[in-house]
Amino acid sequence: MINREDLAALDKADPLANLHDRFELPDGVIYLDGNSLGPLPKNVPARVAEVVQRQWRDDLIRSWNIHDWDRLPLSVGDRIAPLIGAGPGEVLVGDSTSVNLFKLMAAALELRPERKVIVSQSGNFPTDIYLAEGLIRQLGDGHELRLVDGDDVLGAIDDDVALVSLTQVDYRSGHLQEMANVTHRAHDAGALMLWDLSHSAGVMTVDLAGAGADFAVGCSYKYLNGGPGAPAYLYVARHLQDQMRQPLSGWHGHAAPFEFETHYRPAPGIVRQRCGTPSVIGMSVLDAALDVFDDLDMAAVRAKSQALTGHFIDLVEQRCGGHGFTLATPRDPACRGSQVSWHHENGYPIMQALITGCVIGDFRSPDILRFGFAPLYLRYVDVWDAVTVLQRVLADGSWDRPEYHARAAIT
Amino acid sequence: MINREDLAALDKADPLANLHDRFELPDGVIYLDGNSLGPLPKNVPARVAEVVQRQWRDDLIRSWNIHDWDRLPLSVGDRIAPLIGAGPGEVLVGDSTSVNLFKLMAAALELRPERKVIVSQSGNFPTDIYLAEGLIRQLGDGHELRLVDGDDVLGAIDDDVALVSLTQVDYRSGHLQEMANVTHRAHDAGALMLWDLSHSAGVMTVDLAGAGADFAVGCSYKYLNGGPGAPAYLYVARHLQDQMRQPLSGWHGHAAPFEFETHYRPAPGIVRQRCGTPSVIGMSVLDAALDVFDDLDMAAVRAKSQALTGHFIDLVEQRCGGHGFTLATPRDPACRGSQVSWHHENGYPIMQALITGCVIGDFRSPDILRFGFAPLYLRYVDVWDAVTVLQRVLADGSWDRPEYHARAAIT
Repeated sequence: MINREDLAALDKADPLANLHDRFELPDGVIYLDGNSLGPLPKNVPARVAEVVQRQWRDDLIRSWNIHDWDRLPLSVGDRIAPLIGAGPGEVLVGDSTSVNLFKLMAAALELRPERKVIVSQSGNFPTDIYLAEGLIRQLGDGHELRLVDGDDVLGAIDDDVALVSLTQVDYRSGHLQEMANVTHRAHDAGALMLWDLSHSAGVMTVDLAGAGADFAVGCSYKYLNGGPGAPAYLYVARHLQDQMRQPLSGWHGHAAPFEFETHYRPAPGIVRQRCGTPSVIGMSVLDAALDVFDDLDMAAVRAKSQALTGHFIDLVEQRCGGHGFTLATPRDPACRGSQVSWHHENGYPIMQALITGCVIGDFRSPDILRFGFAPLYLRYVDVWDAVTVLQRVLADGSWDRPEYHARAAIT
Repeated sequence: MINREDLAALDKADPLANLHDRFELPDGVIYLDGNSLGPLPKNVPARVAEVVQRQWRDDLIRSWNIHDWDRLPLSVGDRIAPLIGAGPGEVLVGDSTSVNLFKLMAAALELRPERKVIVSQSGNFPTDIYLAEGLIRQLGDGHELRLVDGDDVLGAIDDDVALVSLTQVDYRSGHLQEMANVTHRAHDAGALMLWDLSHSAGVMTVDLAGAGADFAVGCSYKYLNGGPGAPAYLYVARHLQDQMRQPLSGWHGHAAPFEFETHYRPAPGIVRQRCGTPSVIGMSVLDAALDVFDDLDMAAVRAKSQALTGHFIDLVEQRCGGHGFTLATPRDPACRGSQVSWHHENGYPIMQALITGCVIGDFRSPDILRFGFAPLYLRYVDVWDAVTVLQRVLADGSWDRPEYHARAAIT
């Protein structure tokens, strides 16, 4: 049995403990939803003021040259690269995860013209599936999205498959895929491999190069703390960059965009993945948010993440047993990301009561309470204190109020 | 012959004169590049602080409900609608102009499955052409982009044409298309019509409904002053919204995005044009920037625009005649947008000397000096003063310095 003092001792010994002060967190709030929207890094407001009130206001259009606005998609990408096992010039920031999925899936089908199948999981994040559906529907001509249950992916990869598209950490269960193994199996069958890192980058070691992955996408407003609707990123392995084309061939992906040539010529390298004008303010916010990752030991981040999630599982079972929770997340820390999810028939109202009690997680249909653990700003005692609130709302039945059962527009 | 006093008198009588104070403009700068990047509206920094330092910081993930973040693409779109002759629910903000072009061009080809041609102008803004090329290349199967010279558009619209895609105001010459006439000719031939409003919205009356246009896109960082890389917008005429599909079918365009269903179901209306998570900070900046357009008489804006550009043409010819400028813009004010462009063999170094002299316009290959006139923050005397600087750099030859001949990365 662990107690709060044990956890306080872990905080004292935590090499990452000082990072907590780099974030603005509202007083009293225990924030377990960094996998939906990371909190505000303290250095962001100054950077926003610099971009808006100095660069934009004073230097106006000249800022594209003076302040290297045009390089932001590449320079910010190069800062994300070490977090995901990519090299310089392999990561580009811009557009949304959804748009980037479309670019890479379309490019993959073109790289494997004799194959017409994309394999994914039925439990993949919906937008990953929806974009594949949109592409398949647009192309027609026998193209197919083959959706399989979680355990059946490897068996579904055959000679018809052009691309396997998976999310590294399942947004509902927190299950962590075996990236290297699945990638090798895809390659063995002649298929390309795309990973969505939205729920993994920033809280664990990710090694795209080590796995030999071809493509990746990811969202920067979750564990990278880039702010609401922050620009997403994409990865293309260097050896594929110059042989692939993507259909969103906007002017910023042109070899010479400011020559205003009549016909498209793709830029070399990752630049041909660019499309329209980059969102300078959003990219600048993300750039500032990434400061906290400079020289960070991601193995230490992963170790703390596993400890936080492990203690949370133990403490919920220790202190809230008998209340009907079923663990939805792998118990083996090597098999889960940085979240813990529980099935519960009253998951929705219980989560609303927790939020009222200043423990913010989220609910995912049909019955999942989801708690994200971001090692950069969470303390070990937060785990204890969150479970204390959970224990209370269960014990006093305060979750069972009509207002907690009424669904919000966005859950 | 007009003089500075005449122009000062026009400023005194200008019903829009007070709007100048709604913008931050650096001291001494005459800003004639609002068609590349509009200046900072004074109310934007407070709105940014509200979004970043209150909504994001304090309300975190709950802001999606509390602060209606999720409605921004629609609510900001509804504020652009009256500027372009659209109704409520016909304009959506999000993604880049380039991405939106792809969505609408792909949807148009699907609405006319028996036709395989997109018609555009070889002088259209490059990204409009490049995206059509990307789509055509992706689809193959006989699809074709038919690029014609400016005057030949009407003759190129035949029974094979699915879509005519044009920009209302030419980014180089400032030539204004006859929107209603071209749209009717496209419809007569059974084609759909898409307008790019990037160089027209915000400086003139635009009437998409009156012209019967099917689709439009536009950029918000030019004359709408939405900030660098601000989110773009798109328009779909109401009667087409529910019968069309676009391939970038991201989760935010789903009928029930937070139900996380396995398969895509398009939302009704304009919402199915959404794709990924909206860029909340960028949309909030744009939302604030649009305040200046509330209850604005766009006919008065157009009248001032025509007067500013007319005086500029007259004064350059009056005061800088014999220096080799050839007018690239229609002399008839009814046929031009809100810019004046001149051909000049030394256009690039002359523009650099002007910028050093605090008159900011821009250069467009191969030989065009381009001056944008935004009636909301420009004064009539600015026209005189800009020409004074031009007269000086021509008279003293100060434009002919080596440093002014060296091209910047972005021109």
